[in-house]
Amino acid sequence: MRIVVANVNTTEGVTEVIRQQAVKVAGSATEIVAVTPDFGADSVEGNFESYLAAVAVMDRITQIREPFDALVLAGFGEHGKEGLAELLDIPVVDITEAAAHTACLIGRRYAVVTSLRRTLGQIHDRLRLIGLADRCAALRAAELPVLELEADPERSSERIVEEARLAVESDGADVIVLGCAGMAGLAEHVEAAVDVPVVDGVAAAVALAESLVRQHLTTSKRAYPTPRRKAIKGWPITPFAAG
Amino acid sequence: MRIVVANVNTTEGVTEVIRQQAVKVAGSATEIVAVTPDFGADSVEGNFESYLAAVAVMDRITQIREPFDALVLAGFGEHGKEGLAELLDIPVVDITEAAAHTACLIGRRYAVVTSLRRTLGQIHDRLRLIGLADRCAALRAAELPVLELEADPERSSERIVEEARLAVESDGADVIVLGCAGMAGLAEHVEAAVDVPVVDGVAAAVALAESLVRQHLTTSKRAYPTPRRKAIKGWPITPFAAG
Amino acid sequence: MRIVVANVNTTEGVTEVIRQQAVKVAGSATEIVAVTPDFGADSVEGNFESYLAAVAVMDRITQIREPFDALVLAGFGEHGKEGLAELLDIPVVDITEAAAHTACLIGRRYAVVTSLRRTLGQIHDRLRLIGLADRCAALRAAELPVLELEADPERSSERIVEEARLAVESDGADVIVLGCAGMAGLAEHVEAAVDVPVVDGVAAAVALAESLVRQHLTTSKRAYPTPRRKAIKGWPITPFAAG
Amino acid sequence: MRIVVANVNTTEGVTEVIRQQAVKVAGSATEIVAVTPDFGADSVEGNFESYLAAVAVMDRITQIREPFDALVLAGFGEHGKEGLAELLDIPVVDITEAAAHTACLIGRRYAVVTSLRRTLGQIHDRLRLIGLADRCAALRAAELPVLELEADPERSSERIVEEARLAVESDGADVIVLGCAGMAGLAEHVEAAVDVPVVDGVAAAVALAESLVRQHLTTSKRAYPTPRRKAIKGWPITPFAAG
Amino acid sequence: MRIVVANVNTTEGVTEVIRQQAVKVAGSATEIVAVTPDFGADSVEGNFESYLAAVAVMDRITQIREPFDALVLAGFGEHGKEGLAELLDIPVVDITEAAAHTACLIGRRYAVVTSLRRTLGQIHDRLRLIGLADRCAALRAAELPVLELEADPERSSERIVEEARLAVESDGADVIVLGCAGMAGLAEHVEAAVDVPVVDGVAAAVALAESLVRQHLTTSKRAYPTPRRKAIKGWPITPFAAG
Amino acid sequence: MRIVVANVNTTEGVTEVIRQQAVKVAGSATEIVAVTPDFGADSVEGNFESYLAAVAVMDRITQIREPFDALVLAGFGEHGKEGLAELLDIPVVDITEAAAHTACLIGRRYAVVTSLRRTLGQIHDRLRLIGLADRCAALRAAELPVLELEADPERSSERIVEEARLAVESDGADVIVLGCAGMAGLAEHVEAAVDVPVVDGVAAAVALAESLVRQHLTTSKRAYPTPRRKAIKGWPITPFAAG
Repeated sequence: MRIVVANVNTTEGVTEVIRQQAVKVAGSATEIVAVTPDFGADSVEGNFESYLAAVAVMDRITQIREPFDALVLAGFGEHGKEGLAELLDIPVVDITEAAAHTACLIGRRYAVVTSLRRTLGQIHDRLRLIGLADRCAALRAAELPVLELEADPERSSERIVEEARLAVESDGADVIVLGCAGMAGLAEHVEAAVDVPVVDGVAAAVALAESLVRQHLTTSKRAYPTPRRKAIKGWPITPFAAG
Repeated sequence: MRIVVANVNTTEGVTEVIRQQAVKVAGSATEIVAVTPDFGADSVEGNFESYLAAVAVMDRITQIREPFDALVLAGFGEHGKEGLAELLDIPVVDITEAAAHTACLIGRRYAVVTSLRRTLGQIHDRLRLIGLADRCAALRAAELPVLELEADPERSSERIVEEARLAVESDGADVIVLGCAGMAGLAEHVEAAVDVPVVDGVAAAVALAESLVRQHLTTSKRAYPTPRRKAIKGWPITPFAAG
Repeated sequence: MRIVVANVNTTEGVTEVIRQQAVKVAGSATEIVAVTPDFGADSVEGNFESYLAAVAVMDRITQIREPFDALVLAGFGEHGKEGLAELLDIPVVDITEAAAHTACLIGRRYAVVTSLRRTLGQIHDRLRLIGLADRCAALRAAELPVLELEADPERSSERIVEEARLAVESDGADVIVLGCAGMAGLAEHVEAAVDVPVVDGVAAAVALAESLVRQHLTTSKRAYPTPRRKAIKGWPITPFAAG
Repeated sequence: MRIVVANVNTTEGVTEVIRQQAVKVAGSATEIVAVTPDFGADSVEGNFESYLAAVAVMDRITQIREPFDALVLAGFGEHGKEGLAELLDIPVVDITEAAAHTACLIGRRYAVVTSLRRTLGQIHDRLRLIGLADRCAALRAAELPVLELEADPERSSERIVEEARLAVESDGADVIVLGCAGMAGLAEHVEAAVDVPVVDGVAAAVALAESLVRQHLTTSKRAYPTPRRKAIKGWPITPFAAG
Repeated sequence: MRIVVANVNTTEGVTEVIRQQAVKVAGSATEIVAVTPDFGADSVEGNFESYLAAVAVMDRITQIREPFDALVLAGFGEHGKEGLAELLDIPVVDITEAAAHTACLIGRRYAVVTSLRRTLGQIHDRLRLIGLADRCAALRAAELPVLELEADPERSSERIVEEARLAVESDGADVIVLGCAGMAGLAEHVEAAVDVPVVDGVAAAVALAESLVRQHLTTSKRAYPTPRRKAIKGWPITPFAAG
Repeated sequence: MRIVVANVNTTEGVTEVIRQQAVKVAGSATEIVAVTPDFGADSVEGNFESYLAAVAVMDRITQIREPFDALVLAGFGEHGKEGLAELLDIPVVDITEAAAHTACLIGRRYAVVTSLRRTLGQIHDRLRLIGLADRCAALRAAELPVLELEADPERSSERIVEEARLAVESDGADVIVLGCAGMAGLAEHVEAAVDVPVVDGVAAAVALAESLVRQHLTTSKRAYPTPRRKAIKGWPITPFAAG
């Protein structure tokens, strides 16, 4: 099967980190195609950038010609899943929901450790919409800008471990969720340090996407109906912009 | 004071309906500026179109040169408020939240009557995020496409009255919310028919925006922090597209 | 339009503070009539006094002969709104709900800073009934008796700032609500100190009452039906007492 | 032990019905003292009358000279418990909460069958404050004014059985709560008809009050602190009224 | 009346502590029969042991030949009530729910102080199922194994007082629930130390069981229907094991 | 990898149905071992039988000598997961939670169609504990005893389709969950009839178990700590019984 994994920011380096993480967890028969949006911010750290990313990912997905079996939206706490689910007939798995559902299977109360405090409200919104906010013991920010994660991995993982430890010891979390696609790859290190399972959203989403395909399950079109045919000015955006 | 009211679809006729409704409720010293996005769908009836509208409205707002005191987002159940609140320092009032908060002041349980059933999930999401979904007795759709409201106002208001009546008599609603910016102007008629107060989102939002300005209250930047400076490809979209 | 603002305690000085605050936010065409109940406690700081105040306000309102367009119940966390809404056909706005709804429009999570810890349970009850308790980050008491607010305004505002700061920094609030009618007038000072918007209940309620009248919206009588005609001993209380 | 049972309306006949029900369930060593408020409505069917009753009961209780061990507030869905709990050092049990807690011990989801539809919102409010609204399958009204229950017991119990049956068969209730003090004595008849347990609030409250006294448990003064000493005009009301 | 009180562990000493507590609160006409399961753990401190206890109690109850009027399940936070309620036609009262309901009658927010931290999740589950988790201010563990409570009562009650004090002072609890059947008898001591009411589950459950019997209320068989007749291998377990 | 799938009833035929379903969805490198408990009911249709099954499955699992990588608890709405999670160090996936989490990934609101109405309360309890009850649009029973599903598959699937249709059309469900392990294999047929995705719990659980193993995630021992060493009479039960 072929799974498309969509980065939400325009930084190719992050797309590559995500792709590697996806490949690592995917079955050997699964092909991973990682894509980067054609416009938007180089890191998504707030609602403005996230809405823009939602549209940029929809725009990018619309350009894909070859068929694929599932889509992973690889931005933690980002907007867009419901729109993608309307546009496509295949499963669309958002890494936020994938991580939360996975954490709930193996523990009682999870905590999210993310990049910047300014994104906490937005992540909380997503968890509330999913229905799993009550099982979230804490939302913590390491106060690391997304792109710094790449630039200084050592200090980054130190800060993340610190917050994860507080989440376990003070907030009562028994599972940690890494709340940023750019943290893909740090799970093992954090897990060793805090001694509770650590869930990475990209890994969780790819695994869930595969499992849905294997069960022949797809997005309910009653929940996410295909858009009605209508006049849409300037869509898709990229060719319109190029135009 | 000057209040900008943003339509979410690209149909100028709807912008005009919204503008008239805004003017009707606004104080005499308030100037209403109604704007239409430069791209997007001619009616917003789903998440794909709504995400696109969120970005198109942010894009349109970015082009406004003269200062204004508050922004009204005139799409019922639509995405975008959190992004606009990040971009601006003034109050941003979404008609969905305005209508729900207003309905709660005058009754116990409100019902929303909207255009199409396909938008109900999205409206429910907004009400959950606001925290007022538990006070919503019912979400009902008249099964009228947004643009048909304009085309056949008589049949439209008949259908809306029918659903409003069911909401009151079967679902226990004691206030009706008209769940579509295009229904602005029908409140009086529906109210006469069902004998409970009927809230129009545009009117409610303009009135609330004015009241916030009068109280010198503005968006909490701690809740909706201004975006960090960063590289954003292709933003704003309109000039980039024109480019 | 004419708006009656009802103090809940029998201290005329507090009525005057409330009146001034109401006048400050009201439109120039709005007449504010502030009333004081004929019986009850000189400050309302608990359920016993609050129930008494609810009846005293209903009693006082019953004596008003000239017509008015809206009623503001100016006691934070106090009982009575539902009874007043049954007795009247015009909008009744309670300052607790007004403040909470207003705070939710401009932030994500508000905190209430009130006078005494002994009133916190009661305030929490009101917020739960409104449906906005989940968006309340904290309820904090400055441990200042209501009448001391008037007596020592400097120390009072210092204590309130202290608690407001803790609400923002430790509890994650992004808007502060001043939870006591007697605090009317301190908003500006607190806002300057804590750098998040500060909502005053009296101002919020007057602004909302005006906006409801402007929208021709009134209390849903389906939610708050007019009392049935029946034998009521000793009502209204004041003339019966005088009798 | 001595338990005071307070009727909330001024109809002595209802006080007598309540007294008999209380005596029936009380232990042989328990003395029941039933009291009627000195002012207020002859039947309480709404918030205005209920707030008045809350104060009238507090006023009446203040006049009692002999000591007693617990107080039962015998009005279903009425205001007042929190005020009484502040005034007294002994357990105060409200029949609404007593019935709901009792129903939850023996079933999964209870339904309330009350007198008039106009009281449903108020009952719902009490159940939400208690925290047991989620276990309430339905609130149904037999559309019988309180005083008609006494006047035409046969037709009344027929109507109540009808609603109880719908609650069980359509709403999924497995326990019925009789939501009106005036229904005391009908439980057996309804139970025979609908074949699920039927809880009477007065019986439940008296039994719980006795059980609290037996456990030496009393109202938490941390939750319901004694009112501070202060100037209260016209309190208590009865002697003040007597002039 | 005769009430059977079932210990959940196999330690006879604990059964005796429970029996004494039950006798103390029971009316003089009530006979208490305390039973110990025939198999299972000598202390129940987790789900594995709790499930085993649920079955061992059902097994033990099945062996009782003389009739009885109510059953008390004397394990705090343990599994089993729903199964017992299906097997019997009389009231079944679990000490967890009894304590929580009782605490809610006399305060606003209770805290549970239990033996070991490892049981907190399980207790939380029970409180959520009952519907009273939202009124729980804190779950605290004294980190005392159940059997140590008996072995070193002095140190035990000291540790419990410490946690109870934190619950009141830091968590805002106004009632304490002793969350372990083995703590029966410590209530008075803790109450003296922390000055809020302290509820003991065994006492609460016995009092509630008596009150249900007195009201002729029994388990709703619509909620907990009697098991269908069917082939059950190895049931009851004790004779099968002996067999 | 090797996954043990545990039937909860003692009917070997049902174990075989479950095994086939598990094999169908499992990856080719996964070995499925299906086990049947040594004691308990031939079908589990209530809490008594379910508690017994919980212990019988724990007992059966304790006898397994060869290592395995994950456990699937194949009883819908049954007790036991938390105990198994304490006993084991590997992922334990209950088919109820697996189905609910899976349904939430592909739709907004799912409905459960199960065998008998008497099991609905129990299923609801599990969904509440998981935290996904609010996303459940309806719980419906086909009123088919578990073993009849095998005996008369045609009539069974007809009845299930009927209820599934009502769930979609009247209750607003957009995904159907088959709420009984014995329904494994009917998903395709029901899906064809009602045109929304149909989730089978066994398939979902096996897929999720595999995905957890693939991610190297295991049960959080902080959430489900290994039982302390202690004296346990008569455990495990089977050899003790044989003894």
